[in-house]
Amino acid sequence: MIVELPPLEVTGRLDRLRAVVADHADAMIVSDLASIRWCTGFTGSNALLVVTSEDSTLITDGRYQSQAPEELAAARANTLVEIAVQPINVAVDALGDVEMIALEADVMTWADQRAWAKATDAELVPTLGMICELRAVKDDAELARIQRAAAIVDDAVAELQPMLVAGTTEREMAHALEHELRAAGATGPAYETIVAGGPNGALPHARPTDRPFENGDLVVIDVGSLVDGYRSDMTRTFAIGTPSADGRRIREIVTDAQAAGVAAVRPGIEAKEVDSVCRSIIADAGYGDAFSHGTGHGVGLDIHEFPAVHARSTAILQRGHVLTVEPGIYVPAVGGCRVEDLLVVTESGSRPLTNSPKPTR
Amino acid sequence: MIVELPPLEVTGRLDRLRAVVADHADAMIVSDLASIRWCTGFTGSNALLVVTSEDSTLITDGRYQSQAPEELAAARANTLVEIAVQPINVAVDALGDVEMIALEADVMTWADQRAWAKATDAELVPTLGMICELRAVKDDAELARIQRAAAIVDDAVAELQPMLVAGTTEREMAHALEHELRAAGATGPAYETIVAGGPNGALPHARPTDRPFENGDLVVIDVGSLVDGYRSDMTRTFAIGTPSADGRRIREIVTDAQAAGVAAVRPGIEAKEVDSVCRSIIADAGYGDAFSHGTGHGVGLDIHEFPAVHARSTAILQRGHVLTVEPGIYVPAVGGCRVEDLLVVTESGSRPLTNSPKPTR
Repeated sequence: MIVELPPLEVTGRLDRLRAVVADHADAMIVSDLASIRWCTGFTGSNALLVVTSEDSTLITDGRYQSQAPEELAAARANTLVEIAVQPINVAVDALGDVEMIALEADVMTWADQRAWAKATDAELVPTLGMICELRAVKDDAELARIQRAAAIVDDAVAELQPMLVAGTTEREMAHALEHELRAAGATGPAYETIVAGGPNGALPHARPTDRPFENGDLVVIDVGSLVDGYRSDMTRTFAIGTPSADGRRIREIVTDAQAAGVAAVRPGIEAKEVDSVCRSIIADAGYGDAFSHGTGHGVGLDIHEFPAVHARSTAILQRGHVLTVEPGIYVPAVGGCRVEDLLVVTESGSRPLTNSPKPTR
Repeated sequence: MIVELPPLEVTGRLDRLRAVVADHADAMIVSDLASIRWCTGFTGSNALLVVTSEDSTLITDGRYQSQAPEELAAARANTLVEIAVQPINVAVDALGDVEMIALEADVMTWADQRAWAKATDAELVPTLGMICELRAVKDDAELARIQRAAAIVDDAVAELQPMLVAGTTEREMAHALEHELRAAGATGPAYETIVAGGPNGALPHARPTDRPFENGDLVVIDVGSLVDGYRSDMTRTFAIGTPSADGRRIREIVTDAQAAGVAAVRPGIEAKEVDSVCRSIIADAGYGDAFSHGTGHGVGLDIHEFPAVHARSTAILQRGHVLTVEPGIYVPAVGGCRVEDLLVVTESGSRPLTNSPKPTR
């Protein structure tokens, strides 16, 4: 019944990284675990990856001495494995004679950078988002996982419609959703599931409480699942019974703004254009101050990754990018509404990965 | 039935932090979210905390404009809230006229440190683990949450004993455990639950698979829960049917080593002594190379926090520290065993927070 996912392979990724690094340095140290997973297939919780122009070395600890070689072989990573307690010393050896080393300045701590400055005479070059831009363009095997993660959520939300009635608590709904995700084969939720009813919906990042749904509530449900390391992300806003006139109105505005944002997505445009399209519709309707967050973000191995979709984003959308479009309106003490789809950028526009119906009445 | 937990209050914590900062700098920037939660009660996903000798300011974004003041008031935090898109600029204003600013070098990225160096003429002073050492000593309200999180796991493990039979898969067991935790009121698991049977137990950080338990397997179950932000951590190794003579032997060795490690815990000793006690018993039994990780770690808002319990740790145990003692033996292709308790250091020794029986036959 469950279709086998195509195998994840990392072939070619390190060469793409080398081509970018070459403009800045002779070698690169990768410490972000999601980026290491993308480069090598390794899923452990502690590693350092040394990438020189000729070879690459994954340094991890004794807990992973059998797992690391197995995972690298399965992903067809052409990378050595070293087990070490003091990874920087081993990394310095693996680097050999290099003059400039790129470090991920947006990931590596200042303390680690200081340790590197002590350990080597090479110049340390700070990089920002270098690997994240490569990771943003998903291949077919990655898309298959994100699509599966999104479909599992679509099914779970459909299955649990009967719980969307007065009396169900936010916590019951969140737990039931997470149980469905797991039963359908997801590793778990992709992030902390949000179920926020009535006034609680006014907090964009509310945590589920024991408040029962009441007739007239709008209920914001923001839920994703995790499949083989890849994440999905979706929000729908449901009504319990008949929503108030205000509730109906903000849901109409948000639904329209979201659809317009989705329609704007295509390769070659600036991500901030998508934000601006959504924001101007909400502002024109008089709720500009009530849309208090960015319009979206990339999704993949991390739940928030490149490209950011907000007013200050400098990202240009590309075919293969996976991103959310999720405008919202939040009215303190009254409630909130957010509508969110996960999209993949295609040759001429975008394709939704989340397909749950959007309730409007 | 569920006893109300005592309210979490942060009163006095900022003054304790100020006393430590004063030895190094005029003010401190806190960016680690768990540390910000400890200082102020704020649970959001984006914040910066400015602590000067006179006052403190929490800077967060628009998503939290109602949540932040509410949470700070509930925790009795005497801290201002500012909403800002460019937090560093607001932080520089909040700092006023200071000459030396402490930054958490082990948390702040190199890129953020570079941004600070641009934004201010003050000297930036790197600190390591300064707040973590304060956080390590738990107060009664924190202990009540960790104790609750541990008790929920004890109950879940007891409840699910009937599943410890040939045919249950690792994934089924893990999902059933996580379902029980949530049903008992936990927010969720404290970390990725490990259920590793037979040869899979040889990976200390295995992920649950679809492998069914088989008669003769040792099954390593490492599970914790999350209650109001605080975590628990426990491991037991069960046998399915009758374990092999080798399985019995490694479980006896690990159980003995763990008990000796627990008995060594008391205020004033070096954490590495606890590691050494466990390690020497396992080494004397001929399995030194098969114990491939440290003996334990502190637990609280984070699942791994101060104090580390391994051979290179410089930590001294103190009353109120909460830590794990969790030696293990891992034999590639054969299997593994780990036994772990969570303890709080008392005036004269320690008290276990995890109380599940330790199977030995």
